[in-house]
Amino acid sequence: MTNDLRLTLPIERGLDEEIRALMQRLGADAVRNLDGTELPDWVIDESAKVYATYFCARGDEEWASLAGEERVRQFLMSTPTTAPSSAPLTINVMEGYLPAQFAPDPTADINRYWQVIDRTTGKTLPHESWSVVDAAPLPLRDPVRLVGELPVEAKSAIVTIANPEPFHVYTVNFLAKQIWDSTQIYNYLTNEWAKDPNRVKSRPYDVAYPRTWERVQSSLSQWLQSHPEVDVVRFTTFFYHFTLTFDDRAREKYVDWFGYSASVSVPALEDFAKEYGYALTPEDFVDAGYYNSPFRPPRAQFLDWVDFLSRRVSRQAQTLVKTVHDAGREAMMFLGDNWIGTEPYGRYFSEIGLDAVVGSVGSAATCRMISDIPGVRYTEGRFLPYFFPDVFSPGGDPVAEANESWLAARRAIVRSPLDRIGYGGYLSLAMKFPDFIDRVEEIINEFRQIHQRSGGHRPANAQPVIGILNAWGALRTWQTHMVAHALWYKQIYSYQGVIESLAGLPFEVRFISFDEVINDPHALAGIDVIINAGARGTAFSGGPAWNDITLQERLRAFVYAGGGLIGVGSPTARDGEVGTTFALADVFGVDQEIGWGLSTDRYSDHAASSHFITTDIPQPYDFGEDPGDIVSLGAKVLYESDGSIRLAVNEFGQGRAVYCAGLPYTSDNSRLLHRALVWAAKQEKNWDHVLASSNSAVEVAWYPQQGCYYAYNNTLESVTSMISGHGLCVELALQPMEGRWGEISDAS
Amino acid sequence: MTNDLRLTLPIERGLDEEIRALMQRLGADAVRNLDGTELPDWVIDESAKVYATYFCARGDEEWASLAGEERVRQFLMSTPTTAPSSAPLTINVMEGYLPAQFAPDPTADINRYWQVIDRTTGKTLPHESWSVVDAAPLPLRDPVRLVGELPVEAKSAIVTIANPEPFHVYTVNFLAKQIWDSTQIYNYLTNEWAKDPNRVKSRPYDVAYPRTWERVQSSLSQWLQSHPEVDVVRFTTFFYHFTLTFDDRAREKYVDWFGYSASVSVPALEDFAKEYGYALTPEDFVDAGYYNSPFRPPRAQFLDWVDFLSRRVSRQAQTLVKTVHDAGREAMMFLGDNWIGTEPYGRYFSEIGLDAVVGSVGSAATCRMISDIPGVRYTEGRFLPYFFPDVFSPGGDPVAEANESWLAARRAIVRSPLDRIGYGGYLSLAMKFPDFIDRVEEIINEFRQIHQRSGGHRPANAQPVIGILNAWGALRTWQTHMVAHALWYKQIYSYQGVIESLAGLPFEVRFISFDEVINDPHALAGIDVIINAGARGTAFSGGPAWNDITLQERLRAFVYAGGGLIGVGSPTARDGEVGTTFALADVFGVDQEIGWGLSTDRYSDHAASSHFITTDIPQPYDFGEDPGDIVSLGAKVLYESDGSIRLAVNEFGQGRAVYCAGLPYTSDNSRLLHRALVWAAKQEKNWDHVLASSNSAVEVAWYPQQGCYYAYNNTLESVTSMISGHGLCVELALQPMEGRWGEISDAS
Repeated sequence: MTNDLRLTLPIERGLDEEIRALMQRLGADAVRNLDGTELPDWVIDESAKVYATYFCARGDEEWASLAGEERVRQFLMSTPTTAPSSAPLTINVMEGYLPAQFAPDPTADINRYWQVIDRTTGKTLPHESWSVVDAAPLPLRDPVRLVGELPVEAKSAIVTIANPEPFHVYTVNFLAKQIWDSTQIYNYLTNEWAKDPNRVKSRPYDVAYPRTWERVQSSLSQWLQSHPEVDVVRFTTFFYHFTLTFDDRAREKYVDWFGYSASVSVPALEDFAKEYGYALTPEDFVDAGYYNSPFRPPRAQFLDWVDFLSRRVSRQAQTLVKTVHDAGREAMMFLGDNWIGTEPYGRYFSEIGLDAVVGSVGSAATCRMISDIPGVRYTEGRFLPYFFPDVFSPGGDPVAEANESWLAARRAIVRSPLDRIGYGGYLSLAMKFPDFIDRVEEIINEFRQIHQRSGGHRPANAQPVIGILNAWGALRTWQTHMVAHALWYKQIYSYQGVIESLAGLPFEVRFISFDEVINDPHALAGIDVIINAGARGTAFSGGPAWNDITLQERLRAFVYAGGGLIGVGSPTARDGEVGTTFALADVFGVDQEIGWGLSTDRYSDHAASSHFITTDIPQPYDFGEDPGDIVSLGAKVLYESDGSIRLAVNEFGQGRAVYCAGLPYTSDNSRLLHRALVWAAKQEKNWDHVLASSNSAVEVAWYPQQGCYYAYNNTLESVTSMISGHGLCVELALQPMEGRWGEISDAS
Repeated sequence: MTNDLRLTLPIERGLDEEIRALMQRLGADAVRNLDGTELPDWVIDESAKVYATYFCARGDEEWASLAGEERVRQFLMSTPTTAPSSAPLTINVMEGYLPAQFAPDPTADINRYWQVIDRTTGKTLPHESWSVVDAAPLPLRDPVRLVGELPVEAKSAIVTIANPEPFHVYTVNFLAKQIWDSTQIYNYLTNEWAKDPNRVKSRPYDVAYPRTWERVQSSLSQWLQSHPEVDVVRFTTFFYHFTLTFDDRAREKYVDWFGYSASVSVPALEDFAKEYGYALTPEDFVDAGYYNSPFRPPRAQFLDWVDFLSRRVSRQAQTLVKTVHDAGREAMMFLGDNWIGTEPYGRYFSEIGLDAVVGSVGSAATCRMISDIPGVRYTEGRFLPYFFPDVFSPGGDPVAEANESWLAARRAIVRSPLDRIGYGGYLSLAMKFPDFIDRVEEIINEFRQIHQRSGGHRPANAQPVIGILNAWGALRTWQTHMVAHALWYKQIYSYQGVIESLAGLPFEVRFISFDEVINDPHALAGIDVIINAGARGTAFSGGPAWNDITLQERLRAFVYAGGGLIGVGSPTARDGEVGTTFALADVFGVDQEIGWGLSTDRYSDHAASSHFITTDIPQPYDFGEDPGDIVSLGAKVLYESDGSIRLAVNEFGQGRAVYCAGLPYTSDNSRLLHRALVWAAKQEKNWDHVLASSNSAVEVAWYPQQGCYYAYNNTLESVTSMISGHGLCVELALQPMEGRWGEISDAS
């Protein structure tokens, strides 16, 4: 996909002439439909490539009816219930769930796939002590308007614990059939699809069942035959949706973009047990209600399941992709919805053999998450805003959203270009906003220019190579600290800013897991600065991982020998009565006070004058959420507020460490991180003549092979900045959002 | 001590006529000296009682010289040191300590009383792997001006670890001799005593050594004989100072008003081992550097030591008190300095047989800590400000400090009267501030009036009986959440406000330990509302205690049956992967989000209209420090900010629970707590006609037996309040700080 147009537009039936003119004007070389729209016939005759959305795990309602037991399954935990006495305790397992989404499955072996747990003691009850009976579905509360009537498959079940311990809390882990696709529920709720009598609710099926897998394969072959106009099969996606659960008022109840909850089935669990030598329990998925959130220090059983499932998904996806290729088409994967198990940065992804990946760009980090995927020929970013009525209606400001999206994405695109950009939704809606169309035209042209002027080269990286160290490592490349795709959460933005900054900074970034460091003495080779960022007790800062002695030893040795270490939030924090909260408190020269050390007086040694790291960072600083009280163990304190250290530096042997309370993404914080990385790597001497844009609002990319540079204003204000490096020193005045190309030979 | 004057003044030599006139004017019926002042001769002829400060563990420098090995000991932890290689690692154990305060004691059995710990693994090194040699004392850094020259006993020691593990962190727990009294160091630093060439530094000795104990007894007898003018021996105090350690710059390094670190000796440790059947290790005291802070969930070994030592202290103190009584004098104990082991709320205190306790009043809670002490004939509060140059000098505002102290203390005095008040310091200094003397005269008269009008009765309590539930129970009655005596710490004020409020509210308050609830099914009998308040993981909220199933069961049963539960901060928080952070999340209807549950969507059910608890509490509320994100599990939310619940109520069975993020002491927060207690106890119907002052700045005490009430303005503003109850309903306009007595029969 090397032509220069690089734009995909969603089109639909109707408005034929307007759409053709718009395609011409914007230079779209590909078109696509989406769930719920059909491509017009005329498109086949045009030169544009045709993408078609293809669903592997839903949409074949004939099959969904025929193979009603082959639905996708999910382990759910009932609402915790406290026994007020030893009288029999009944739990209606569907309480709090949307009865249109799930139905309990008591046909599976209850002894293996249902579990009653006393959450007060943590013990699983013996099966003899409880029983389960079918029950009528709980009525829809108020969401009928939004999701329509209850499907016929809806039902519930009641578990009775014969003789509970008084005042213990009980839950039922139960296997549920998913009777309605999660993304479709989202669409019903967002776009009021319940009002459309022609809509059919998709019931997801599972390729873990051999008959379904046969059907999915043959359906694809037939579909390819009947859709000769399609050039690119856009798999949306493969087999298992990320965890997205709705509550009894049709509100989102649980969302984990990385969640594997909806990937279970009896056949797969049985295969797993054979292959791994042990059987997974419902609790291995339910995880006390945390459902193996990526913030949880991952447990071995869950990692095994991820490995098992992604191997399985890759092999089955490979078969479908081969079918597509055999039919002379391209295979593209949408990175979202049913992407679970594909793991683009995992061990098995390349086996799938995809031509391309497309994903939604919500930030620089999610852009890099797409553009850095190894082993595909091209990547495409679906830009925001989506052409949906939530934005494209009176009161919406699609231009502002387009600008925000572009400013975030451009930082990433400069460093690691997407090959294409595209849009999604209803083009007819967007066409009602001509200023939006104008802005899209500018954006796509700027995007094309980046490809043209860079000559396909990446801009030069600066010296320190960065390693992001957490429990997940490469598997979650550019995917740290995320709950729902690219959404803001109070508890994550202070850490997401780290990878959001890095996604646009001129450094090579690697993602390393604790296990790699523990198992491989050379895991840190080639890395100059390690970053450990996150809240206390999470997989990203580490939690129990830091009780590993080898991990501590290797990190200390790394810094002592001259490496850099940057901690953000509660780095290396672990529980335990061991004298410090941070395992590497000695390296950072700071620790976290958790209430046991209040008797120790704390004195901060403040840096005497301005420090390299904060040289051009204006106060007030923004360190985001307070991670808890940080106290000095000897670091030089650069900033302290509310009695807590927010920024401090320390020397440890030949190396350096930086502690920072949090780094929400802002231009200034990106600059602060940039400087901290350079300082931690002892590269500050090179700052002035290699890297600098004097104004942190402006970033600059150097293309030595092309003899040019690209300077871009990341803000909505007009700004001026001195750009210096590679012998150049020039002052640029940039319009809001402007990106400007210059020749390095234009030296002043 | 039932005369009506109730005032003790510190007097000194010189200014004889002025002092006599002042005693007359203020009505002082007792006088005292203090450390460093002598009583004038004329005082013996006056009618006032004479108190004399008496030191049991220091001051006899002749003995201190004769018995140089019988100094008080303390286990200290050396500064943690990271081994950069396996080469021998040397640690100078005194690094970071004030060489004038401690000297390592390598004469004790090194194998038992010194310990080298690998803090990375937590393991104690075998004794063969390290050695210790004497070393010269580290030089005083810059504090010579403040503390004078180094004592001759000063020295250090160097520990060499022969073959450390590279990049492990090591500490030495070492037995140190205390070669200078802690309070005296404080006085040197505060009052620049080093400038006075006549000062002698006190070297503390330990009555654990039989010879010293003999000497202390005989010294007291002799002293009593040679001081016939003394009526009251004011023990300051007995044998062991609270933990107060200084660093190498003569700054406070560690302070724990409850600390037992300076109570160890080889004889006592040996006796302990015989009596309890196991030997304590240095680490049992060092506690990874936390030194058994009261915020630490207490460990069994430490509780054993507290029990052992307080039994021992009580018995030895009893002997001294008997000597005082046999000489026809009274024995008074100062609650501070060397008070460790007396434990006024412990099991052995009454055995001492004291006549009185005097203590410094820093707040309402510390006032109640003194006035509620059982088993003494009278109590005296030493009021602030202390007559020291830090306040009584140009720029100081002693009147403002006196007002603040009085407003805080008065709330407590009304509920549980001190018998006397007194002042400390240099009267000559105070006499230079005539407006301060005027204010003292007003305060002492108001104090006397409370005694006269109340007729010795306590005001009526309102109905709910309150139980404060934490790890310490009654032993720390009115002593929760305190680090240094009555000082403000960022991490405690949000919880201290709870007991500070209660100290002036009309409720019976009991302090109960988790162990009592666990061991005694009737421990909660008679209690209407339980409060569990504190930061996560501390002894006050509970931490690991909440893993006890019985504790959970009994609290749930208590509330379910109709009891009230109020949680402040992180109540019932415990670590563990058990689904909720709060053990009683089901009772509170809220939980603390620690990062693992971000995927769960949280919806708060806000109370529809105003709630009883917040009826007359003006916004903005002040909940103090953020305890972390609190999310709803079904409670009615009364207030939420920054995405976190700050105040919520829940029903559980027949009972009620209230969650509150924090309660710094303010009049409004005291009112809020008052209301929350009444609501939790389902007593809100009685509010209007029993308890009410319409303005939270004004509190009212009812004396039904006397037919009167006392209404007092807790602020520095003029205020108006409706006072209603006992058939009375009257509007009062009160001057700043005014307290007014009225007859209940004055019904409107």
